[in-house]
Amino acid sequence: MSTKATFYHAGCPVCITAERTVAEGLDRTKFDVEIVHLGQNKARVSEAEKAGVKSVPALVINGQAFHINHGADLAVLKA
Amino acid sequence: MSTKATFYHAGCPVCITAERTVAEGLDRTKFDVEIVHLGQNKARVSEAEKAGVKSVPALVINGQAFHINHGADLAVLKA
Repeated sequence: MSTKATFYHAGCPVCITAERTVAEGLDRTKFDVEIVHLGQNKARVSEAEKAGVKSVPALVINGQAFHINHGADLAVLKA
Repeated sequence: MSTKATFYHAGCPVCITAERTVAEGLDRTKFDVEIVHLGQNKARVSEAEKAGVKSVPALVINGQAFHINHGADLAVLKA
């Protein structure tokens, strides 16, 4: 069974680079990868927060949030 | 041809978790993954720095450094 992996981003340049390399680099035989643009899908910001996401880009695997570099704080997406 | 992906860590709990999930989750058909423990292999700290690594754990893919969460500053490994 695939493990769910969710990559949250906000379209910032560092997000796009991380999406292309890290999120798309995950083994698709092991992970069911979903990519969520929080800037375009603000309804999912609270879900990301509950998973421990503090900033984007972030990758949530098995309920654990891994922040990649530092892009934009989630706070700016709520404005 | 595989892309070189180097995961630098220092054995901290967040490093180990990131290693098990992110680094080991990379598609091995696309990436030649090397895992480097900078605490045990201080000779490679300068190489990591040149690749743009500021803190560990970090993943360097195609010369681009992706910092995952925030573990320990490289400065403490030089002591």
